[in-house]
Amino acid sequence: MSSNAFGKLFTVTTFGESHGPAIGCVIDGCPPGLAIAAEEFAGDLARRATGKSRHTSQRHEADEVEILSGVFEGRTTGTPIALLIRNTDARSKDYEKIVEQFRPGHADYTYWAKYGIRDPRGGGRSSARETTVRVAAGVIARKWLAANFGIRIRGHVAQIADITPRGFDWNAVEENAFFWPDAGQVGELESFMDALRKSGDSVGARVNVVADGVPPGWGEPVYGKLDAELAAAMMSINAVKGVEIGAGFDSISQKGSVHRDEIVAAGFLSNHAGGVLGGISSGQPVTCSVAFKPTSSLRLPGRTIDVEGREVEVITTGRHDPCVGLRATPICEAMMALVLMDQALRHRAQCGDVGNVFPRIPTPQEEQ
Amino acid sequence: MSSNAFGKLFTVTTFGESHGPAIGCVIDGCPPGLAIAAEEFAGDLARRATGKSRHTSQRHEADEVEILSGVFEGRTTGTPIALLIRNTDARSKDYEKIVEQFRPGHADYTYWAKYGIRDPRGGGRSSARETTVRVAAGVIARKWLAANFGIRIRGHVAQIADITPRGFDWNAVEENAFFWPDAGQVGELESFMDALRKSGDSVGARVNVVADGVPPGWGEPVYGKLDAELAAAMMSINAVKGVEIGAGFDSISQKGSVHRDEIVAAGFLSNHAGGVLGGISSGQPVTCSVAFKPTSSLRLPGRTIDVEGREVEVITTGRHDPCVGLRATPICEAMMALVLMDQALRHRAQCGDVGNVFPRIPTPQEEQ
Amino acid sequence: MSSNAFGKLFTVTTFGESHGPAIGCVIDGCPPGLAIAAEEFAGDLARRATGKSRHTSQRHEADEVEILSGVFEGRTTGTPIALLIRNTDARSKDYEKIVEQFRPGHADYTYWAKYGIRDPRGGGRSSARETTVRVAAGVIARKWLAANFGIRIRGHVAQIADITPRGFDWNAVEENAFFWPDAGQVGELESFMDALRKSGDSVGARVNVVADGVPPGWGEPVYGKLDAELAAAMMSINAVKGVEIGAGFDSISQKGSVHRDEIVAAGFLSNHAGGVLGGISSGQPVTCSVAFKPTSSLRLPGRTIDVEGREVEVITTGRHDPCVGLRATPICEAMMALVLMDQALRHRAQCGDVGNVFPRIPTPQEEQ
Amino acid sequence: MSSNAFGKLFTVTTFGESHGPAIGCVIDGCPPGLAIAAEEFAGDLARRATGKSRHTSQRHEADEVEILSGVFEGRTTGTPIALLIRNTDARSKDYEKIVEQFRPGHADYTYWAKYGIRDPRGGGRSSARETTVRVAAGVIARKWLAANFGIRIRGHVAQIADITPRGFDWNAVEENAFFWPDAGQVGELESFMDALRKSGDSVGARVNVVADGVPPGWGEPVYGKLDAELAAAMMSINAVKGVEIGAGFDSISQKGSVHRDEIVAAGFLSNHAGGVLGGISSGQPVTCSVAFKPTSSLRLPGRTIDVEGREVEVITTGRHDPCVGLRATPICEAMMALVLMDQALRHRAQCGDVGNVFPRIPTPQEEQ
Repeated sequence: MSSNAFGKLFTVTTFGESHGPAIGCVIDGCPPGLAIAAEEFAGDLARRATGKSRHTSQRHEADEVEILSGVFEGRTTGTPIALLIRNTDARSKDYEKIVEQFRPGHADYTYWAKYGIRDPRGGGRSSARETTVRVAAGVIARKWLAANFGIRIRGHVAQIADITPRGFDWNAVEENAFFWPDAGQVGELESFMDALRKSGDSVGARVNVVADGVPPGWGEPVYGKLDAELAAAMMSINAVKGVEIGAGFDSISQKGSVHRDEIVAAGFLSNHAGGVLGGISSGQPVTCSVAFKPTSSLRLPGRTIDVEGREVEVITTGRHDPCVGLRATPICEAMMALVLMDQALRHRAQCGDVGNVFPRIPTPQEEQ
Repeated sequence: MSSNAFGKLFTVTTFGESHGPAIGCVIDGCPPGLAIAAEEFAGDLARRATGKSRHTSQRHEADEVEILSGVFEGRTTGTPIALLIRNTDARSKDYEKIVEQFRPGHADYTYWAKYGIRDPRGGGRSSARETTVRVAAGVIARKWLAANFGIRIRGHVAQIADITPRGFDWNAVEENAFFWPDAGQVGELESFMDALRKSGDSVGARVNVVADGVPPGWGEPVYGKLDAELAAAMMSINAVKGVEIGAGFDSISQKGSVHRDEIVAAGFLSNHAGGVLGGISSGQPVTCSVAFKPTSSLRLPGRTIDVEGREVEVITTGRHDPCVGLRATPICEAMMALVLMDQALRHRAQCGDVGNVFPRIPTPQEEQ
Repeated sequence: MSSNAFGKLFTVTTFGESHGPAIGCVIDGCPPGLAIAAEEFAGDLARRATGKSRHTSQRHEADEVEILSGVFEGRTTGTPIALLIRNTDARSKDYEKIVEQFRPGHADYTYWAKYGIRDPRGGGRSSARETTVRVAAGVIARKWLAANFGIRIRGHVAQIADITPRGFDWNAVEENAFFWPDAGQVGELESFMDALRKSGDSVGARVNVVADGVPPGWGEPVYGKLDAELAAAMMSINAVKGVEIGAGFDSISQKGSVHRDEIVAAGFLSNHAGGVLGGISSGQPVTCSVAFKPTSSLRLPGRTIDVEGREVEVITTGRHDPCVGLRATPICEAMMALVLMDQALRHRAQCGDVGNVFPRIPTPQEEQ
Repeated sequence: MSSNAFGKLFTVTTFGESHGPAIGCVIDGCPPGLAIAAEEFAGDLARRATGKSRHTSQRHEADEVEILSGVFEGRTTGTPIALLIRNTDARSKDYEKIVEQFRPGHADYTYWAKYGIRDPRGGGRSSARETTVRVAAGVIARKWLAANFGIRIRGHVAQIADITPRGFDWNAVEENAFFWPDAGQVGELESFMDALRKSGDSVGARVNVVADGVPPGWGEPVYGKLDAELAAAMMSINAVKGVEIGAGFDSISQKGSVHRDEIVAAGFLSNHAGGVLGGISSGQPVTCSVAFKPTSSLRLPGRTIDVEGREVEVITTGRHDPCVGLRATPICEAMMALVLMDQALRHRAQCGDVGNVFPRIPTPQEEQ
């Protein structure tokens, strides 16, 4: 019910500010008996972390996860799993100048208007630092989904400014700093990002995320639809301005005879629906595309007002990403995992005794 | 917690199937003392209704609202408001042929896979008939928001297939069957829709919705963000495949120096954010753009399978809209109203004693 | 989240006032495939109804249930089940005198202080009329619990004023107007109630309710404990002032060596816990005892103030029960059923893949 | 929605096991601007702590609270407040013997039946250690309620085994180890407890808690009633078996003419209702009485079975309280505070614009 919690049955409550002592979360509702160790969080946290290349913020956080509860002798017990990550590289002095100013494009003014008080250090609660614990919670969800249903969740960057992939190869994605599916474009992207960083400006990005192996039947009409919850999950990530499921906005100009995914004995003939029909999974891959705006933290001066209403010029000198979308792939994957995990449990609650229903429409397994 | 309910504090629980005896809703949490009469629902329900022009489905529903509770001597009492609308023009025989088939692009297969049983008459629960009560509930929310904050919520169709408005005039929107903001294009649209209807095919549409007058401070970070809840609200509407806030997907190729909405003493210089920063309203107009797919109910034959797994050809002969997005404007407006109403109450709960915070960034009032 | 809704996954949202056009509820989250017909509600509704004997209020309601949604060809579909009951015997003129007065012991003053407005006809929303739909919803829960787990829920009156049962026989309970387990005392109770009714006064009662067959493992620590939710469920019934689980208040003076229910291979040796340990069912009968206050609607004059703050004398001349607890047994059973149903689904959600755990402590089946 | 969370708007999510690395909580929804410092938790935590007298368990915990988030420069910011308390005196070896056994009267069997796995060290999650963080969260709620409404919440022990207070003096309560309101009985209680401890057995206790200054209008009918939520709150505390509001079970044998609290211009003439009518506060003191069972952790051998189903004798040699109710007063007070805080925010959400309603029934302020 709390707005810092996500999920109805697999509920992740997060806490923490960018420059506070720690961030963390409490995961409630996790099925018991799942093996989990502190080391298992390192992989996805590193994928999300800053400072791994020159193309991201140079903040270096240890991102060490301490499991405070809910795990006994290496297995979940069904009680709340609390994860704690200490902040180790906060440099609050970078922000002293902007305490009295509202950075344009940031949440400074809105937090202040809402609460009458704000923690300005590193963006406080509105910082993307919070997404670290989403990724951590997602690790548990992904493991359970994989173990119980063979679900695999993968994402990649699909657009940076006006640049889109020419080729597509899942194997390339994890091999470059841009989560980019065409290895041949990496040099071009590096040049582009270097020039951008030097200019002091920023650009947006698109991230696509796909879940294979989701069984048909997950999703709760009409307000707990699988796609509605995915939309909320993605839009809750910092800097996101748009979400598409399946064909998304392209479906506006499609004919119905094209968009509807016809079915033959061998399976669906297309997947414009993105794996969701009527809010319920169809067994096809669940696909989602997410728009990230360019960060507003720039070295280029911008006009704004201060807390006295006076016009001032603001320059952001902290460590920032010229393209926040670059590190967003693991966050989008994590949110997809959290939505699916929650819906899996909700489906089992209501429909756990629905027998096997035939026919099941075949879904050709993509090559690994 | 129920998935057929929307909103945390202003909670709308809907029920009913397309061809069942009735549809309706229970609205819980409405502030007491609001004047409301059964007649007040007629306006928005007529805007959403089928059968008003040749360009929509020819089902004619009376859409008469009976208030069953929660209103005493014309005012809300703070107890649940139950609204009941009897279905009067259901023709279930149209659907007899498809009971045993899964219409492609519909929820037939997914409901069946989830529940092991489905009500096939008119799409059952997955029919857009359900959106009628969203609009009814929205009437109450809109009235309260207008009375207490002067908030005005308006929408229009912004794209049909590949056609976009050449001019823009709010006054034109309610004067044509397409909610179209350029009166000069209406003839063209009529021809397009007539040809489409004759072809037996369908197209998608884009609906834009704007709320003026939303005060700064509404929205709950980090998972109850105003934009995250708008995304879920819109994506929960039948046939929606994409949602944008503010600049949406265009923000990907924007520079940060352009996207960030600079602020001067006279107010914001642009509104790429769509009135939401960090999940909290900024006082600027809240803007949302929604993609509706083309309906999959076509007279053109399509391939699918039946409940025995056999390949069959399906033709949908019921009464359908060639472009469901045409009637979606009042639905999107209603969902915007429900989200804002709920956030208004949530904001008052937590921050009701936050004093007036200065400066407030001016928001020039648009002409009416 | 709405406060007129009960249950997290099997969610019952009720609406309606005592003298409004109708009462009803929306049941969301019901498993699909359960056979249910409108006639099945009649039995329990009659047990709860007024006017069946001279010892209860003489209001005669038809209590006919119309199923508006969620059932197709006699089976639940998994979509919301809306139940509607029209009010047919409301006599609002009885209440005209008290519109301007706050009846002592009633919710008149508190509703008015909260909402600034109240529906005074028959107590409005605060009337026990609302419990009718709890009983109706309970019928569905009981049927599912019986069909899936063999759970049987029974209750009886265990005290009226200072009178307690001398003997105990489940078979007697449904054979008299007092839900009394000792047929030999019925004459005495009739005389007592006749004298009480003539005196214009009222008394309280105790209702005990027992669920047999609840499997071990239901209940969610630490705030969703089975006993905590039972306590809330019972205390939410009109006129309830106390709730006990198992030994209840008697456990204060018990020794721990007596209270702890020792276990041998054949099963538990006692059930002071009332079937719940650590908030989770133990497999023993779940037992609950509930205190109902005497109704405050009396023909005997009482002192109070009116809406102008003037002291006035109030006499309640409407139709009332001299002992509201007499009709409360089916309501308590229904609330027990709703709690168990909800916990059953929640348990399946989180622990649906927990294998059979041995040993299971035997629970000797009580004779039917 | 998570079951380890309490409260709809002021939501406290707790985590931690008795012998795990830490316990803690996340408090979401706290109004911004409240001054709070880590030192302010010490007082109530000490009142709840073990090891302060020979009459409680001899476990000595530092109970030092670290504020991890949600507080900036000494004031709450409206973002989640995470509190962390490291466990410092866990002695898990005491429990090694009982890993394979189900202690009678404990949650060992039920956790194991539910989850298929359990953390046996010190009772794991089912330990009363969890209540420490309830008390910590209650400190914040109490401070806000006092600052904004002048609400004072106090409790005392009202029965130990068969012993009840002869006199009553609030000033005495905090001056003895028993939270006992009659200083003259302290010697008797010490002797009783010494003898009990030596016997190896345990007894139950009754705790009464009272909130003065609660304004009329708090509480949400019909399932979110103030008394229903108090009942759940108290019953969720370890070892509680019964809850009464106002006259409680005594109301069964009261006449209605006595029970109803008559009203004159000077105020209510009695408070059998316990400050709640129709689920809404009346402005009178809110009173609650709670039954704690005797602990089942005894040095006296008891019969049970082990995980193989074999009959065994169990003796509990860990550090335990011979009367757990003795330390329960601050826990009951904290739960009262959490319920009131949550209802305060919920009331403001829905009824924040209900004007001052007259007359307000006077509530004579008790002497401090």
